[in-house]
Amino acid sequence: MALFRRMLGDVLRERRSELGLTLREVSGTARVSLGYISEIERGQKEASSELLASLCDALEVPLSQVLRDVADAVAVEEGILVPTPIGQLPQPDQVVASAA
Amino acid sequence: MALFRRMLGDVLRERRSELGLTLREVSGTARVSLGYISEIERGQKEASSELLASLCDALEVPLSQVLRDVADAVAVEEGILVPTPIGQLPQPDQVVASAA
Repeated sequence: MALFRRMLGDVLRERRSELGLTLREVSGTARVSLGYISEIERGQKEASSELLASLCDALEVPLSQVLRDVADAVAVEEGILVPTPIGQLPQPDQVVASAA
Repeated sequence: MALFRRMLGDVLRERRSELGLTLREVSGTARVSLGYISEIERGQKEASSELLASLCDALEVPLSQVLRDVADAVAVEEGILVPTPIGQLPQPDQVVASAA
């Protein structure tokens, strides 16, 4: 079963790594205890909505983006193929060009 | 501030309405108390990840889809424009055709 808190933890930890921030730094900015953030990142604790908003602020990422990333990870776990955006598919003229 | 539980409640209630289900019916299928589901739909209680998974099952919708819908609603609240997929933009040949 795809659990929201586990996927959310992965996405939040990945974002923190991207920024090169330590748990201590995020803890200071978000005013959340280091241990709590660590448990959230490991998917062991649910984050309240207020805490999630604080973490997104500290990680300088919109909540909507975090939720999209979690949705993508959950879709993979659910075995749902994330469709390729139409603009990234080969266009008919490209197919003709390569066949010529 | 865009709160996850509020947007989630809206999305879950909308899905229940689409299916024409009552709170009582969802409560029975998801094995969650009616009052609790009602509070979640009104954004007054946080749903645990396990409960969220049960609700998605009862509402016959993948968790990933619920999270995408929540992400879209949050993006609007954040004032972030959801980009139009490239395939839905006018294509250059369409623009030429209409100018001719």
